[in-house]
Amino acid sequence: MNQGIKAISPGLQLTSGGQLKHFLTIDGLGRDLLTEILDTADSFIEVGERRIKKVPLLRGRTVVNLFFEPSTRTRSTFELAAKRLSADVLNLDISKSATSKGESLSDTLLNLEAMASDMFVVRHAQSGAAHFIARSVTPGVAIINAGDGRHAHPTQAMLDMLTIRQHKERFEGLRVAIVGDILHSRVARSQVNALLTLGAEEVRLVGPATLMPAAANQLGVKLCTTMEEGLAETDVIIMLRLQKERMESGLLPSEREFFKLYGLTREKLALAKPDAIVMHPGPINRGVEIESAVADGPQSVILSQVTNGIALRMAVMSMAMSGQLAERAAAQHGGAA
Amino acid sequence: MNQGIKAISPGLQLTSGGQLKHFLTIDGLGRDLLTEILDTADSFIEVGERRIKKVPLLRGRTVVNLFFEPSTRTRSTFELAAKRLSADVLNLDISKSATSKGESLSDTLLNLEAMASDMFVVRHAQSGAAHFIARSVTPGVAIINAGDGRHAHPTQAMLDMLTIRQHKERFEGLRVAIVGDILHSRVARSQVNALLTLGAEEVRLVGPATLMPAAANQLGVKLCTTMEEGLAETDVIIMLRLQKERMESGLLPSEREFFKLYGLTREKLALAKPDAIVMHPGPINRGVEIESAVADGPQSVILSQVTNGIALRMAVMSMAMSGQLAERAAAQHGGAA
Amino acid sequence: MNQGIKAISPGLQLTSGGQLKHFLTIDGLGRDLLTEILDTADSFIEVGERRIKKVPLLRGRTVVNLFFEPSTRTRSTFELAAKRLSADVLNLDISKSATSKGESLSDTLLNLEAMASDMFVVRHAQSGAAHFIARSVTPGVAIINAGDGRHAHPTQAMLDMLTIRQHKERFEGLRVAIVGDILHSRVARSQVNALLTLGAEEVRLVGPATLMPAAANQLGVKLCTTMEEGLAETDVIIMLRLQKERMESGLLPSEREFFKLYGLTREKLALAKPDAIVMHPGPINRGVEIESAVADGPQSVILSQVTNGIALRMAVMSMAMSGQLAERAAAQHGGAA
Repeated sequence: MNQGIKAISPGLQLTSGGQLKHFLTIDGLGRDLLTEILDTADSFIEVGERRIKKVPLLRGRTVVNLFFEPSTRTRSTFELAAKRLSADVLNLDISKSATSKGESLSDTLLNLEAMASDMFVVRHAQSGAAHFIARSVTPGVAIINAGDGRHAHPTQAMLDMLTIRQHKERFEGLRVAIVGDILHSRVARSQVNALLTLGAEEVRLVGPATLMPAAANQLGVKLCTTMEEGLAETDVIIMLRLQKERMESGLLPSEREFFKLYGLTREKLALAKPDAIVMHPGPINRGVEIESAVADGPQSVILSQVTNGIALRMAVMSMAMSGQLAERAAAQHGGAA
Repeated sequence: MNQGIKAISPGLQLTSGGQLKHFLTIDGLGRDLLTEILDTADSFIEVGERRIKKVPLLRGRTVVNLFFEPSTRTRSTFELAAKRLSADVLNLDISKSATSKGESLSDTLLNLEAMASDMFVVRHAQSGAAHFIARSVTPGVAIINAGDGRHAHPTQAMLDMLTIRQHKERFEGLRVAIVGDILHSRVARSQVNALLTLGAEEVRLVGPATLMPAAANQLGVKLCTTMEEGLAETDVIIMLRLQKERMESGLLPSEREFFKLYGLTREKLALAKPDAIVMHPGPINRGVEIESAVADGPQSVILSQVTNGIALRMAVMSMAMSGQLAERAAAQHGGAA
Repeated sequence: MNQGIKAISPGLQLTSGGQLKHFLTIDGLGRDLLTEILDTADSFIEVGERRIKKVPLLRGRTVVNLFFEPSTRTRSTFELAAKRLSADVLNLDISKSATSKGESLSDTLLNLEAMASDMFVVRHAQSGAAHFIARSVTPGVAIINAGDGRHAHPTQAMLDMLTIRQHKERFEGLRVAIVGDILHSRVARSQVNALLTLGAEEVRLVGPATLMPAAANQLGVKLCTTMEEGLAETDVIIMLRLQKERMESGLLPSEREFFKLYGLTREKLALAKPDAIVMHPGPINRGVEIESAVADGPQSVILSQVTNGIALRMAVMSMAMSGQLAERAAAQHGGAA
């Protein structure tokens, strides 16, 4: 069970048999596994439409929502997902509690593990927090990354993939534009990884040159500084949420300026293919990133993303739990041999 | 499903078959429906006395407590009612979360609906908030009004009716006094509606003339400015809670003055019938609205009101859910035809 | 059911048949009952290791966590314990709610009782709060003391007993040292009671003379002001948590000074028996009460204490519920006779 003190290792989130046991990042996950996640999520979409929206997969399991930075919306989706899997849920707003008594993060987590917790859903302002926990603190607890700093937000990226597949059926041949403040987005990085792994033809990052990450020049990604170039003939447009705080600090142009250049209007949408879909992680800043007529228009799939978010989270939670159980079983047999 | 942009419409909370599908106000609900609510609540009182206080009526359903103004007490009663119906409950203290990120109310609600929520319990400082949501935002989610501004607090009024019926058996022939700050009470308005619809003989509003609403001169309600006039020969005395904040702003007499004129003491209680019951929605300001000897005395049914509050909320929640399901089924058949 | 207005009565927490019906203090509980609690907890430890960590003992029961002072950690353990017993749980952070509207404590509690609550888990800054509630306010609701002022924290003490028994098998012949700020510790008092009742050979209180309670000179307890004297040949070392606030107010020596004199280092640990176990209620102040090498070392059983805490709380909750039911049944038969 010793994971070693390597840098972020692709194998950290997989069992020796290749099953998911944590869900930390899309980096290093193969196409088959991503597809398995999407297929599992598809089966949970049907659960959300049932009269009794429950499956007993995590019955008797304890899921702890560990939010080191507050996010009511993300926490709610994980809470509902866990409850629909029949888990017992404990919400901990860590910013206000235990650690304020001077206890170290690692002691807090070891304590929660000792309470026989099975899964931690972790949201943290620092990049790599979820990895650190999975690798060095509580490897026997399934860790689900619910957003860590600028690094990754893999469930958000995967629910986007689920939504794209629903509407476009396959990733092959798709041209996808990701628009906005790429540099500060934890989602964009995860989305690029997922899209490329799943076989999208072209991923374009669209935004002001100052907001492009230095490492964006990787294989298969095209950088565009205008919407004309960025949206032409695309199948999917993913708008990123603008962090207003960053704007105020002068790192971004003004809201009005941003909207003029990169806001998604009906006119700009017309640059894309006629059946292009429009996505946004929410909450929407109407009139800043996107015009209401587009957000509420026929090409918008923004509310499908929300619905899919529950199903996708149910999928990774149940898969990671299975992976942990497989690993525990293997460890017991190993010990007995 | 288009409800139109009418003023508060009586039909808004009913299905085409006359079933409850939201519970927004007592206005416009007929005697049969109010009686059905009370009968259903009666059946749930027995559940509260069981060893296992659970029924599976909302099993697998998601109930969201949407409190735009905080009220721990009211939220707790709805939370317990939902859990005893076996629902999954999500508590959102909206004043502190999502909307603070600049998201509109309507976007927040559409997001929650997209998470496959079945019911919103809404508390809002603004009159008409629950109606607005039911009519214009999420008509397919059952909306339960848990208090909106000065307008209505229909579950409180109905639990009072349940308590009256328990002790007096029928409404015919009853004389009921409602005492206090009528003008600012969201409960009083709902109570008057319910009492008149259920057939009470006389409803008296008792308080300082300055605290009587302009529209109080309606059919069947008698205005009284003294307790002598107001309580004489009554069967039921409903004390309203005094909002201390209003007193401090000079709109009300001082606490001492108020108690002298309208506080319920043993002496004043003696003006009513010997078997009159005393009610109060809680929390009580002892020595302001009511003397402890009366609040804790043999004629007080204040704690029965609390017990009945759970049963009544279980009743409207389960009825509104049934109504929504009936409407969904009808819509599907309509679509198939 | 009239308990009378006596001082803290040993019988208050027992039914006439000698069953636990509240869990307020270890004072006055006999060895058989303490042993029954430990045996019951042992049976729940196995539940924590199951795939489905649930037993239906409190199914349909309503447990209210009434925290008048915040303690996320203690609240979480009770919440998990209640959920694993299948109870419905309501968390009330009373410091922020109802009572702030001017309602008396007693009215708040009577209201919660009227909502058909079965159990209150009470945390309060004032000594005797839980007793007061059990005796004078809601005797028909099972009251579990989760820490009251400096008085008692009986579930913490009993989980320590459970941990000692797991590692040492029996209490006879054991020498136990309790180290730190004895004067301000609500746990120490409960621990001494439990250890003496269960038959430990010697209990030593170790700390600065200024932090010894005046009444510490009771039978069987030995006061020690140095670690050399206090730890020699002990089987169990219980470190108390240091309240940093008290240090800052000058009541305690500085952290550095305290650590030098009473901090548990490997050197001081060597004074105890080689197989002595090291305990701490958490959260740990590393480098103040205890050195990391000891806290994480082979003799530390600190994380076992956490695991045992859930099982122990499940035990007292289910036993107190049984006691209440027995008493209710007896009262009904009494009434029928």
